[in-house]
Amino acid sequence: MSILDSMAEILFVLVETKYSGNLGMAARAIKNFGFHRLILINPLCEVDDESICRSMHARDVLENVKIYPNIDAFIKSERPTCIIGTTARVGSEKNPLRIAVPIQFLRDIIIPADSRIAFIFGNEERGLRNEELMKCDFVVTIPTSMEYPTLNLSHAVSIVAYEISQSLKTFKELPYRPATALEKKVLINAFYRLVEIVLKEMPEAKKEIYKGIIKNLVGRAFLSGREAHSLIGLIKRTVNLLLSQN
Amino acid sequence: MSILDSMAEILFVLVETKYSGNLGMAARAIKNFGFHRLILINPLCEVDDESICRSMHARDVLENVKIYPNIDAFIKSERPTCIIGTTARVGSEKNPLRIAVPIQFLRDIIIPADSRIAFIFGNEERGLRNEELMKCDFVVTIPTSMEYPTLNLSHAVSIVAYEISQSLKTFKELPYRPATALEKKVLINAFYRLVEIVLKEMPEAKKEIYKGIIKNLVGRAFLSGREAHSLIGLIKRTVNLLLSQN
Repeated sequence: MSILDSMAEILFVLVETKYSGNLGMAARAIKNFGFHRLILINPLCEVDDESICRSMHARDVLENVKIYPNIDAFIKSERPTCIIGTTARVGSEKNPLRIAVPIQFLRDIIIPADSRIAFIFGNEERGLRNEELMKCDFVVTIPTSMEYPTLNLSHAVSIVAYEISQSLKTFKELPYRPATALEKKVLINAFYRLVEIVLKEMPEAKKEIYKGIIKNLVGRAFLSGREAHSLIGLIKRTVNLLLSQN
Repeated sequence: MSILDSMAEILFVLVETKYSGNLGMAARAIKNFGFHRLILINPLCEVDDESICRSMHARDVLENVKIYPNIDAFIKSERPTCIIGTTARVGSEKNPLRIAVPIQFLRDIIIPADSRIAFIFGNEERGLRNEELMKCDFVVTIPTSMEYPTLNLSHAVSIVAYEISQSLKTFKELPYRPATALEKKVLINAFYRLVEIVLKEMPEAKKEIYKGIIKNLVGRAFLSGREAHSLIGLIKRTVNLLLSQN
């Protein structure tokens, strides 16, 4: 059971893939990010031992793969609500087919719950053909170095799966509860008291600089709630010790 | 020529990698996102034909690979300003070493121009050991499905390279020098002394948790040299006040 079950369905569609190892690696990447649907259009290789070996614990994704002879057959059967092509070759404005949106823009898109979104990936050597791009609602690209823009197919699948899982925000709980604004404020204020006591002879302006630094320290550190509480305890205890000894 | 040449240097460090194919795939992923430095710590495989084949047009990255026997030798020679561990196993808050920041949070961090940031990736089967995580300033994780969280090593490298290339795009030259590894260490040690004094009646194990939290606080905050110095001054002064009043 995936926690995405009640949400948008994402289909990963590989067109004329050549190397069976890539099928396995793609299956693994898809499952790593909570997706399960791998679709092959006219594959130039088979799901073989190499694919299964490379899929590791995503053999189920390979076993449930669907194969279609062409994109039209895929569209007719799966009825995606949106087809998104992928390309490494970002064309000039003369070829509007290849005007691609950087993939990270998808992070700001709200995906309706009942969408079926298909991401289409071309063959390892030539990517998607113009007539394949024609079938897409729009095209995305993964921003790469201009020096060497061609990603391994399974890496491209992996980054798209990662990005789209980020868009589907509710996807995974944070590994910890982040500190609330109030907790951070209490911690910062505890540190401020420490500054007032320890640096009491300093001019106000200098103390303000210290306070700014403490604000940065706490603000940038992505503390968990528990970390914030422990630090509040430590600093308050320090302050109390200093006060009790005066 | 990479557009990143004049910017922060990013090092990709693979610890005890087992499969030579992964070295090639990682080299390719690094170059795809405009990076060039691959470092191996005590590799369990060699850069062989399989690596070269899988690196495709990133053979130069493999040819310039540096190998060190252990992380300490790497640190001594390369002097990174910040070491970021990667983990798929996100520990409970009981193990502060494994409290990992989701990788996408790095997108909001401003990376000073002359930083050398090392991302460390563990072995394919066991990831990074606790003693390896101890050498890191902080730890990041790629948010995955809980059902199958273990990414292929080169996929993990690829997603980190992609994310960090996104952070570097919005890069702004900072008017300050980032804190060195030594400065951060001095600050952490000053905090440790504070813990020893303020929490002296606590059991050792609990103090260790506090120390782990302090390591996270300082490690994640991307302090400037001046910020580190001010905080070292504040904490040392606090310690001296506490000691003088006893």
